[in-house]
Amino acid sequence: RYFKELIVLSHYENLKEHFKRIAHLEHLSAMAGWDEQVMMPVGGGQARADALATLDETIHNQLTLPQVGEWLAGVSQESLSKEDTQNVHMMHREHKLHSCLPSHLVVEISKASTLAQQAWRKLRAENNWAEFSPYLQKCVELTRELANRRGDAFALTPYDSLLEQYSPGLREAQFQSVFEHLSTELPSLIQKAMEHQKNKDLIEINGPFPVAKQKELGLKVIEALGFDFERGRVDVSHHPFCGGVPDDVRMTTRYNDQDFMTAMMGLCHETGHAKYEQQLPIKWRYQPVGKALGMTVHESQSLVVEMQACRSSAYMKFFAPLASEYLGASEGLTADNLYRHYTQVKPDYIRVDADELTYPLHVILRYELERALIAGDIQVNDLPSLWNEKMQAYLGVNTLGNDKDGVMQDVHWPAGIFGYFPAYTLGAIVASQIFETMNKQLPGLLEQISQGEFEEFFAWLETNIHSKGSLIPMDRLLSQTTGDVFSSKRYLNYLENKYLA
Amino acid sequence: RYFKELIVLSHYENLKEHFKRIAHLEHLSAMAGWDEQVMMPVGGGQARADALATLDETIHNQLTLPQVGEWLAGVSQESLSKEDTQNVHMMHREHKLHSCLPSHLVVEISKASTLAQQAWRKLRAENNWAEFSPYLQKCVELTRELANRRGDAFALTPYDSLLEQYSPGLREAQFQSVFEHLSTELPSLIQKAMEHQKNKDLIEINGPFPVAKQKELGLKVIEALGFDFERGRVDVSHHPFCGGVPDDVRMTTRYNDQDFMTAMMGLCHETGHAKYEQQLPIKWRYQPVGKALGMTVHESQSLVVEMQACRSSAYMKFFAPLASEYLGASEGLTADNLYRHYTQVKPDYIRVDADELTYPLHVILRYELERALIAGDIQVNDLPSLWNEKMQAYLGVNTLGNDKDGVMQDVHWPAGIFGYFPAYTLGAIVASQIFETMNKQLPGLLEQISQGEFEEFFAWLETNIHSKGSLIPMDRLLSQTTGDVFSSKRYLNYLENKYLA
Repeated sequence: RYFKELIVLSHYENLKEHFKRIAHLEHLSAMAGWDEQVMMPVGGGQARADALATLDETIHNQLTLPQVGEWLAGVSQESLSKEDTQNVHMMHREHKLHSCLPSHLVVEISKASTLAQQAWRKLRAENNWAEFSPYLQKCVELTRELANRRGDAFALTPYDSLLEQYSPGLREAQFQSVFEHLSTELPSLIQKAMEHQKNKDLIEINGPFPVAKQKELGLKVIEALGFDFERGRVDVSHHPFCGGVPDDVRMTTRYNDQDFMTAMMGLCHETGHAKYEQQLPIKWRYQPVGKALGMTVHESQSLVVEMQACRSSAYMKFFAPLASEYLGASEGLTADNLYRHYTQVKPDYIRVDADELTYPLHVILRYELERALIAGDIQVNDLPSLWNEKMQAYLGVNTLGNDKDGVMQDVHWPAGIFGYFPAYTLGAIVASQIFETMNKQLPGLLEQISQGEFEEFFAWLETNIHSKGSLIPMDRLLSQTTGDVFSSKRYLNYLENKYLA
Repeated sequence: RYFKELIVLSHYENLKEHFKRIAHLEHLSAMAGWDEQVMMPVGGGQARADALATLDETIHNQLTLPQVGEWLAGVSQESLSKEDTQNVHMMHREHKLHSCLPSHLVVEISKASTLAQQAWRKLRAENNWAEFSPYLQKCVELTRELANRRGDAFALTPYDSLLEQYSPGLREAQFQSVFEHLSTELPSLIQKAMEHQKNKDLIEINGPFPVAKQKELGLKVIEALGFDFERGRVDVSHHPFCGGVPDDVRMTTRYNDQDFMTAMMGLCHETGHAKYEQQLPIKWRYQPVGKALGMTVHESQSLVVEMQACRSSAYMKFFAPLASEYLGASEGLTADNLYRHYTQVKPDYIRVDADELTYPLHVILRYELERALIAGDIQVNDLPSLWNEKMQAYLGVNTLGNDKDGVMQDVHWPAGIFGYFPAYTLGAIVASQIFETMNKQLPGLLEQISQGEFEEFFAWLETNIHSKGSLIPMDRLLSQTTGDVFSSKRYLNYLENKYLA
């Protein structure tokens, strides 16, 4: 009996050791990716792309080693704790995600997406869809192959297998009716909100606001939010993001001296991502089960900070005097007026600049197009006209002949990222549900936020979300903490209360 | 015959592809190492050390794969060009450097040196030799094992095998008499130089010099030297260094608002390293033969810029007006006075702060101690008293009880780096020989330097040194370009002319 236990233990110990080493390699990928966007001079691009492709292949090879399959088979004989069992489950998932792919496909995708992104940077600026579309075509073809293979391996539809990559356990069936509901209701809600806002005075906020001062103000904001500077840093990049690893989180923003509001709210958003990483369970560091639960939950954590805690009149009471202190007092820098700016509704071309109310329609449009693309129901060359039709229907915006602000605006597809977009709006829905629960459980929360106090807020998130890592599945985590998985009804209710008040 | 060629070609093509992938992994190591010293918050240290150790092991495993041995055996049947043959020779060398080591030793060394460096940072500040010495002891023991194994594999003495790691082809026999000659002659030359300098007026140069202004001045300096900002960047770190990869060179300096001279000359030094990397042959990128020829030649390239081109009265004619422009004119900022400061001789404790004349004795002392340590002729606990004896003999400096400024001052040994120190002084010797040759071949050189024009200077280095990569062995490269390998006579002659003039 003693002997048997030793053998059984060694399979799991082998797996833990192996996945720890894979996590160390992923650390290097995260850091080189951050560096590419924040530090790297342009001439270093090719060498970096080559290095990252080799690292991707190395990680792929480590995940698909024959021993991993043997250990995973062997470990099933063993009696493990519930948490260890979930860890093995997540190992299985990563192994299966990769062992269903031939390594030449991994390399082909890496190369095609590097080329497509380089082409995109140049051709988007030139509004040149004709030259860009063959690159996108290649990405779509390779992604179809990937989705078919992963779908077969997981017994999922091709599109569900793409969702699975970014959000473990997420299926279309969980949100299709949610998106339908939103796409039906939001256009009229947007009209009502715009009517409603017409009657409210909006004082213009005009710069310049010196970048050095904005940086100081930004540091005050993320300090108040409790970002741990011992285990992370803040820099500037063209596209704000949050990267790095839990003990060394790298978040970024960008500054514009005519507009401090975007940068300041961007920092709140990225701090939401950062806190999730910084509060992941240290006990499970480097293990699959110690990772964040996927991008839907990750976006919910950035959005519960941005949309719920900070894009609120409570937060503006804290933020307005601070903004005046660093940027100089002016008529527009009152809590009320800042809140009106931060909740101003205006249908427009660009997703990343969209307000809270129009944003879901940008996402739903992309979801509808990418699922049809992967299914083969539409082709790459149909995209510009379909994009225009949907933008007209959802937001009354015409994108004909303006592909740079239409189908070419996002990096996702040329980067080979399909099945990611739903996470943004599902994250927004989850964020609103979480905040509803929090407000019931923490009655002083809004008052605290108006004082710039976030300890209880983040302690709640740590206890209920962050410290869980991937120890429980998303649907269980969400129904436990909010009583729902994704509720369009609750979300629309929240939006109506906020935008028609 | 056609068939045979195909097979033979494929061995070499396999090797080239394999070593290219290894170069891509080394890229990630270089960047993560740069980040650790320049960007990383303290809390990220453990995760980074783990990631780098895993990467080291991955590279080690790639270099020692059985296929590599088979390809290397197979390729010997093939008729390759001279350059390809040298490439295979360098592949053989890297394979052999690693295949003689069991992978547990690689991991042990990585871990022991990480721990010893962490201990060093803390205990050096506390001048605590007693607690530090066991860490160093562990590093010495592991390095002895490494040196014995590599010595056996290369049929070299253990110490020569350590030299080989950093400077391919470098042997003690090439420089033992050179170091003896220097250690005999330099102490009296130092005395004479100090006597000589007593008679010269030295105007004090007092700060503060705002760091922002020093940075602007520094950029002007490296711009004049021709640093390629499209393929590199400049940052601040505690210990200045030059890292990265040829297409993305990362160099650093540090600023002190009371002293701009150290930072400005440090930038010249690091630009020398950077230009070597940036001018390596693009045709051989990612191949062993496309790399720099080792640390002796690398130091010669930083020092030919620093000690020969820039720490000269010609350069001061260019630099003095520029310094006045950025830092404000003052009585001390004349070319003559700056030159006197930059050539001031003063025996002292610290190697990295040493002047050109005392520096070689710091190196020779370390060489003598480390070779005896590796041979087992002395033990770690003998170091503090031997250090003091030698410092007294060479420089008249007493380090008894002051280990933080004595044996504990350098990071090399706790980092597991033994056999590197000679490269500094051998590089200085080579630099002086190279500059002698250049001056003969480029008669207008000093005049150009006094105008801040460095095109011809770096074009010469590119043609004669940088573009050669590792295509020819060091001794051949040096005798071709300078007529000597290492000449203590020519070096002492140069120093006498400079310091007794």
